[in-house]
Amino acid sequence: MISKNKIKFINSIKKKKYRDINQCFFAEGEKLVDELLNSDLNIIEIYATSEWINSNLQQITKQNTEVIEISELELNKISSLTTPNKVFAITKQPSFDFKLNEIGKELNIFLENIKDPGNLGTIIRIADWFGIKNIFCTKESVDLYNPKVIQASMGAIYRTKVHYIETAKFFSDLKSIDNFNIYGTFLEGNNIYKEDLSTNGLIIMGNESHGISNTISPLINKKLFIPNYPLMNKTSESLNISTATAIVCSEFRRRIT
Amino acid sequence: MISKNKIKFINSIKKKKYRDINQCFFAEGEKLVDELLNSDLNIIEIYATSEWINSNLQQITKQNTEVIEISELELNKISSLTTPNKVFAITKQPSFDFKLNEIGKELNIFLENIKDPGNLGTIIRIADWFGIKNIFCTKESVDLYNPKVIQASMGAIYRTKVHYIETAKFFSDLKSIDNFNIYGTFLEGNNIYKEDLSTNGLIIMGNESHGISNTISPLINKKLFIPNYPLMNKTSESLNISTATAIVCSEFRRRIT
Repeated sequence: MISKNKIKFINSIKKKKYRDINQCFFAEGEKLVDELLNSDLNIIEIYATSEWINSNLQQITKQNTEVIEISELELNKISSLTTPNKVFAITKQPSFDFKLNEIGKELNIFLENIKDPGNLGTIIRIADWFGIKNIFCTKESVDLYNPKVIQASMGAIYRTKVHYIETAKFFSDLKSIDNFNIYGTFLEGNNIYKEDLSTNGLIIMGNESHGISNTISPLINKKLFIPNYPLMNKTSESLNISTATAIVCSEFRRRIT
Repeated sequence: MISKNKIKFINSIKKKKYRDINQCFFAEGEKLVDELLNSDLNIIEIYATSEWINSNLQQITKQNTEVIEISELELNKISSLTTPNKVFAITKQPSFDFKLNEIGKELNIFLENIKDPGNLGTIIRIADWFGIKNIFCTKESVDLYNPKVIQASMGAIYRTKVHYIETAKFFSDLKSIDNFNIYGTFLEGNNIYKEDLSTNGLIIMGNESHGISNTISPLINKKLFIPNYPLMNKTSESLNISTATAIVCSEFRRRIT
């Protein structure tokens, strides 16, 4: 059973403002809650149908997680999915930081003003697949804990650190790292298939409508291009940001796989 | 000015049933209509604000397209976008066929029961980028002319042929083609980066939730795997279907770019 106040609270944290105040987020459905239970994150409470509780009894008892039984009807009142799926969890937002010297040794992603939550979630899933631990976003980007980001990430969000940073300071700090390339894709860039790609560095992806801005562009020392095929063909002007990110990350990892 | 009956008609063709009856579809926004005007498709009529009409006068006069001026308010009544964008067009659904001997020489995509319109649109955009002219879908797949497919394709839909086919007959016909590989991605497949990939063939991508079915799986003679990095890492179970399609197509084209 779920109280009216609790329903109000849960619906409130679908908005960024209230997620920030309460420092929590909302994850929905069997797959996402199952991944949560197997993560290091701090689950505040789980709301689930008796069916879900019965089939997960062992794990929730072991972890001592607070579980509240609710009906399908109650679930429908809270769900943001078109097909509500047995369970949802309220979880504490993790806090994490990054160390410049670690970033310097690794491959990282920087997203400039990414706006579509589905794209951010998909890129987190790509990063997780390719072992990229840190994603940096401008403060104007979509919120990490937007329910659509969490849904699209399919649990990868629990294993990836997404930092919202002050752009100018961040790029100024990066200058202190030796042998650290900054990559971005441009129509006039070099063929990515033939370019030397380092095992560390920062891959910059631009906004869905405007691409990489004139502020960020001069900071990129390696301009890449994903060749269309055949090269002379009339085609779309560009690839979608998640698609381009997938191809770029795959190319970086291909060299060392 | 737009009549009530016309508004009713336009809203009706947001549903597949009425699109099929009327053999037309609906494309919205400056980018999509601009690409339409530059395509071979048969535009029935364009509804646009005076602003759009004034800046496109030359082209619409040249092409003799019927254009009806509407107000922003009227546009809002019809739009399926959160930010309605100056113009929309009703276009005749093109009819096209394919020839087995042409398919046999080219690289093609087959989508098994793809359900998400955003994914289909994104895959059409990927196909267009990589010069893949034909996409085959099972009849259970999402409709090509779903407004979200058209939106996500960003105009690539006008240059790509999407065929809804009878699966059993299609695969039986393919057997008559010599040197034609059927590819699919599996966790137990061969490392795609190191595998020989032909310039022709069929790339099969499975349904978002269930992957490639047991009916289709035995028809695949080349099983591929997109390696995660590092290989021993705990990661997501899979990549999103559009992401995987992007990486697979990129790998096929890399060999010949």
